[in-house]
Amino acid sequence: MPDTAPTLRAALSALDNGGAAEEAAALLASPAFAKATSHVVQDHDRIVADIIRLTEIASPPFGESNRAAAFAEALRAQGLQGVATDTEGNVTALRPGTDPDAGYVVICSHLDTVFPAGTDVTVKREGTILRAPGVGDDTRGLAVMLGLLRALDAAGIRTRATILAMGSVGEEGAGDLRGVKAFFKDDPRHEKVAAFMALDGLDPSRLVTAAVGSKRYRITFKGPGGHSFGAFGLVNPAFALARAADDLSRIRVPASPKTTFSIGRIGGGSSINAIPEAMWMEVDLRSASPEELAKLEARFLAILPQAAEDENAARDTSAGKVTVEVKVIGDRPAGTTDENSRIVKLAQGVMTGQGYSFHAEASSTDSNIAMNLGLPAITVGSGCAGGRAHSLEEWIDVEPASSARGIATAMGTLLALAGVDSSAD
Amino acid sequence: MPDTAPTLRAALSALDNGGAAEEAAALLASPAFAKATSHVVQDHDRIVADIIRLTEIASPPFGESNRAAAFAEALRAQGLQGVATDTEGNVTALRPGTDPDAGYVVICSHLDTVFPAGTDVTVKREGTILRAPGVGDDTRGLAVMLGLLRALDAAGIRTRATILAMGSVGEEGAGDLRGVKAFFKDDPRHEKVAAFMALDGLDPSRLVTAAVGSKRYRITFKGPGGHSFGAFGLVNPAFALARAADDLSRIRVPASPKTTFSIGRIGGGSSINAIPEAMWMEVDLRSASPEELAKLEARFLAILPQAAEDENAARDTSAGKVTVEVKVIGDRPAGTTDENSRIVKLAQGVMTGQGYSFHAEASSTDSNIAMNLGLPAITVGSGCAGGRAHSLEEWIDVEPASSARGIATAMGTLLALAGVDSSAD
Repeated sequence: MPDTAPTLRAALSALDNGGAAEEAAALLASPAFAKATSHVVQDHDRIVADIIRLTEIASPPFGESNRAAAFAEALRAQGLQGVATDTEGNVTALRPGTDPDAGYVVICSHLDTVFPAGTDVTVKREGTILRAPGVGDDTRGLAVMLGLLRALDAAGIRTRATILAMGSVGEEGAGDLRGVKAFFKDDPRHEKVAAFMALDGLDPSRLVTAAVGSKRYRITFKGPGGHSFGAFGLVNPAFALARAADDLSRIRVPASPKTTFSIGRIGGGSSINAIPEAMWMEVDLRSASPEELAKLEARFLAILPQAAEDENAARDTSAGKVTVEVKVIGDRPAGTTDENSRIVKLAQGVMTGQGYSFHAEASSTDSNIAMNLGLPAITVGSGCAGGRAHSLEEWIDVEPASSARGIATAMGTLLALAGVDSSAD
Repeated sequence: MPDTAPTLRAALSALDNGGAAEEAAALLASPAFAKATSHVVQDHDRIVADIIRLTEIASPPFGESNRAAAFAEALRAQGLQGVATDTEGNVTALRPGTDPDAGYVVICSHLDTVFPAGTDVTVKREGTILRAPGVGDDTRGLAVMLGLLRALDAAGIRTRATILAMGSVGEEGAGDLRGVKAFFKDDPRHEKVAAFMALDGLDPSRLVTAAVGSKRYRITFKGPGGHSFGAFGLVNPAFALARAADDLSRIRVPASPKTTFSIGRIGGGSSINAIPEAMWMEVDLRSASPEELAKLEARFLAILPQAAEDENAARDTSAGKVTVEVKVIGDRPAGTTDENSRIVKLAQGVMTGQGYSFHAEASSTDSNIAMNLGLPAITVGSGCAGGRAHSLEEWIDVEPASSARGIATAMGTLLALAGVDSSAD
């Protein structure tokens, strides 16, 4: 089987020899980039109109289809090729590059919000402030993607790699990255992906270079139950859960790569005077390192049967034993993109060249899947001020100058990754 | 201050020298008892009608007033003296005795059921089976009390002690024995109580001689909360609760007097990806021995601040410490009536004389308070078959012969305690 990996993938994964900063600077100084940036500035009202229009199409978890249809229609109207919605619900479209061997550079914003169906998603505008659930996370990302693709067209820019524009489903919470998971599992084009750039979050100076992986569990200890006094001595699932939780609390995890555990919720039992028949807890394990996450997970999973066994040994099992049920309720793989790789140094060069004080972070975004697969991947902000994401008070500031600078930065990063074909000018 | 305790109290508390069985046998063989028993048999339809009528007056926890009014009216109609409803809601009435120094023998059934307002309390009759929530626990007790008092009147029986008939509130669950607690705290007649006999439960062969005491707690650990990954390292109330629960699980308690602990319910936390701000558990501690209950309680209460301290020592408290809130949600004092005391031997003599295979038990009933105060106290069944108490499928069997024998047994026990004044025949 021939190696179908695009040449650009290896080039972006390689350690930078110092050339990336210069390359980024040259890009930002080019007349083509200036022309595209100028278009972003002129296009302000349309970008804002798209933010408002898309925000007001509710896109709850597992209910993104209306917004997906609107986003697909916008891509189609702008002349993108092969606009399609896959069986998971992702919208994809292509802007062909000039070098077939360069493969695809994916730019991806997520269609879903955290807000349930029925949430009032009307945008309230006060000056340059837009307030609405989901307006920034990640609806601005979708509108900015449309805007920067228009700017490339207006400036006549051709990229070497093909740009694969994607609106993904299921990035938030229980969605568990189902959109990008499906893309990398089922879409044959994933083999040609040279780089993955998620356009998510706002801060234009923040670059996500590490994917915080998480495994989430709902653990249920079950037992025979019984009257608290009459049946005293029988095994109690609450005690097995307590033992397991206490053992979890004693695990030592590395500070770097940051690795964490938490019990977020506990519940169970029907009455104070009854030994519970079931007691459950929800546990969140995370790490930026797949190895550390796997080690933590293995230690945690070993605790559970031991806690049940300890309870069965300590008390009477004549009416039944304590058993444990382990259910995975979240699985986001970890991964990293080397901070000294060319993809990171190119993005850093664009950000600093645009005047931002670059910082790298670990987070959980659509890039997780690509990073976990070893692909060069980053997540960049859609470039403006804002706050209160995941709350009903979410807001963004679309002050024209700073908004345009942020959009141009994301556009510059995309161009740095995909490569500008100057012969095509 | 003169000792106002009735002479009968000491006599019933004293250890039996073997005379109680003979005394009970003589009572059962007396023409007066035969006449009263005969009345119970003839009175069957009226007793059943009272059971149905009172059952169909809903009497939810903290909402016993309608049933209390009906019970008071029935006592008044039967010629009881001083029928009154106290500020807590208990109904009391007197049937005077012939010996002022003998004091009061209390016969007490509880007015409340476990069923919330709105529960369908219609009685369904199938042959001799009556089905309805609360029909046996303890509505039959109320109707049987009315019936046996009528039988004493019909047989012209005078007792030496005054009978204090009581319909108590708040025996069940969260009622926490509030009715009898109020009586023994606020009613000046409590000083004259020579014996306390709760008429509760059904089984005519069961005598409750030990009051299982219980302390019930809702324990809440609180902390600053935070993001499960971003704020990792901060104290987590779930871990403090787990430590406390695990420590509780390791306490060794005596098998005799039976002493028990249980965690019935646990809850708390808002999301799997947030360190919880609060986590609670409901804990039930019980013993038939006040001393053992107090020891268990002291050990448990010492665990709680230690668990909070351990968590505060193990993790970061810069955003706030874990604290613990301790709330008593139930307090039923323990106590026992000596199984070799005259009161127990008299009851045993009546039960075996009536043909039942007597057995003694520990339970939590209105007798708890009297036993805890050191008064001679017992709980006897209202005398029939039945089942599924505390469920919507509760039922009793009022088959006439066995029902009458059960009622006569409770009546015989009351007479054995209060003493029959044969000179008054």
